[in-house]
Amino acid sequence: MADTNWPSCCRSLKGVVLDMCGVLYDSGEGDGVAIPGSIEAVQRLKASDLQLRFCTNETQATREKFVAKLQRLGFDISVSEVFPPAPAVVAVLKQRGLRPHLLVYDGVLPEFDSIDKTNPNCVVIGDAAENFSYQNLNEAFRVLVGLEKPVLFSMGQGRYYKETDGLKLDVGVFMKALEYACDLEAEVIGKPSPMFFQTVLGDMNLQPHEALMIGDDLVNDVGGAQHCGMKGVQVRTGKYRQNVETWDLEELDQNLEQICTEPHPLPSSLDFICSFKQM
Amino acid sequence: MADTNWPSCCRSLKGVVLDMCGVLYDSGEGDGVAIPGSIEAVQRLKASDLQLRFCTNETQATREKFVAKLQRLGFDISVSEVFPPAPAVVAVLKQRGLRPHLLVYDGVLPEFDSIDKTNPNCVVIGDAAENFSYQNLNEAFRVLVGLEKPVLFSMGQGRYYKETDGLKLDVGVFMKALEYACDLEAEVIGKPSPMFFQTVLGDMNLQPHEALMIGDDLVNDVGGAQHCGMKGVQVRTGKYRQNVETWDLEELDQNLEQICTEPHPLPSSLDFICSFKQM
Repeated sequence: MADTNWPSCCRSLKGVVLDMCGVLYDSGEGDGVAIPGSIEAVQRLKASDLQLRFCTNETQATREKFVAKLQRLGFDISVSEVFPPAPAVVAVLKQRGLRPHLLVYDGVLPEFDSIDKTNPNCVVIGDAAENFSYQNLNEAFRVLVGLEKPVLFSMGQGRYYKETDGLKLDVGVFMKALEYACDLEAEVIGKPSPMFFQTVLGDMNLQPHEALMIGDDLVNDVGGAQHCGMKGVQVRTGKYRQNVETWDLEELDQNLEQICTEPHPLPSSLDFICSFKQM
Repeated sequence: MADTNWPSCCRSLKGVVLDMCGVLYDSGEGDGVAIPGSIEAVQRLKASDLQLRFCTNETQATREKFVAKLQRLGFDISVSEVFPPAPAVVAVLKQRGLRPHLLVYDGVLPEFDSIDKTNPNCVVIGDAAENFSYQNLNEAFRVLVGLEKPVLFSMGQGRYYKETDGLKLDVGVFMKALEYACDLEAEVIGKPSPMFFQTVLGDMNLQPHEALMIGDDLVNDVGGAQHCGMKGVQVRTGKYRQNVETWDLEELDQNLEQICTEPHPLPSSLDFICSFKQM
């Protein structure tokens, strides 16, 4: 259970995990745009005694290409600090001897180069965007209904995300579609899966109560972290929309409301934490 | 509550409601193909003293074009006997003063000619097939999240249907997708909505226990009819797949299992009924 007392929680803090899209940058044409103050906020965290990791449900590019984009936007960030779902899925597939039918964005395909994809016995979906065509969804459906024990992996379960030209449907929507079509429950790999947060905590060698997650998604970032025993903070950039996301508040640590009453881009979140901890 | 005793139920029978796709014909290229024996089965019903109606979740064509296709396949059928969702949705939209954003198949658009579609305050989806593109789903999503009180009508809630080249995802799958994206519950117009069955019963001026529904969908045809107090029979043509649909059996009238143990194209279903009723 997370410590719900902010001052004592912040004083014991040893690591921060940042969501990326909607916290560091807004995606869109080209590389998208950095959110004002976020480049400096990352610098400030790196200059502190806190450990820093980046945890994302981004599944449209390989880790290398994704990190290169963030570097071009001005962020001080390296591949080893970033945790996306695709490498985690590849590890699970290898461990369980599964051969995937992939319904993913073309850019992330190289992450699956080392995996046998012949005669598939499971389906993996990511944020495939335009690849979520009727034809491709039918193909994934037919693979699943043809299996005696259908297995569907979903890289995240987000509802939507914000690009510079508006809100776009995320992978969770198509996960629900295939779950209903095949009457099955997908295995989610990515946020808010506890296993995913624990991998990041393990990499920092920290206990949950020593780490804080900052994201723009109340369910996948804040809720996922809280279910793990971490503290969660929601920024009001990215997909944050006051009227839409309040439905989820009841499920979450009530103390969250206290911090949610203030406007919250990433720098303000750090100021809030700093008010309790020297940083 | 339906009479679960087949002999007495069949003797009191005054009307039969037939599902169309998967019972009368399999859809596919061109007009699709009539299922062997189904043309004669319709003739036999028309020659009996039973009333006959056709109840379909077909939303890819206007009633006129849809019925013309069935006539070309050889069926004795007229427009006034056929109940699809689109005219029912149009009635509801007019009654509630709603202006729809339509995500439907092009062929059904003329059904909505009489409706104001400017500045939409609800979304209507049907079996849009290839029109279920990522872009069109995003557009429908954006309309819904932009409304203070989002309203989504779904013309049916089927999981999939069979065309001559294989199984295809039906409207229910995309209904679930938008429900999850917007955290709302769609209003289903079509089978298995009780209101939809009651409209057909009203047209025949029959009580539920006097009517029987024959379809290939255990949830939408058989279950929907049973929830209305009608009797339901599943044929084993169309989308019927032994291993996939058993999950729904538990929810239904247990007596159904008795009839489901026999192979069941439409003519055999009529033979079964005839064994209890002179026809």
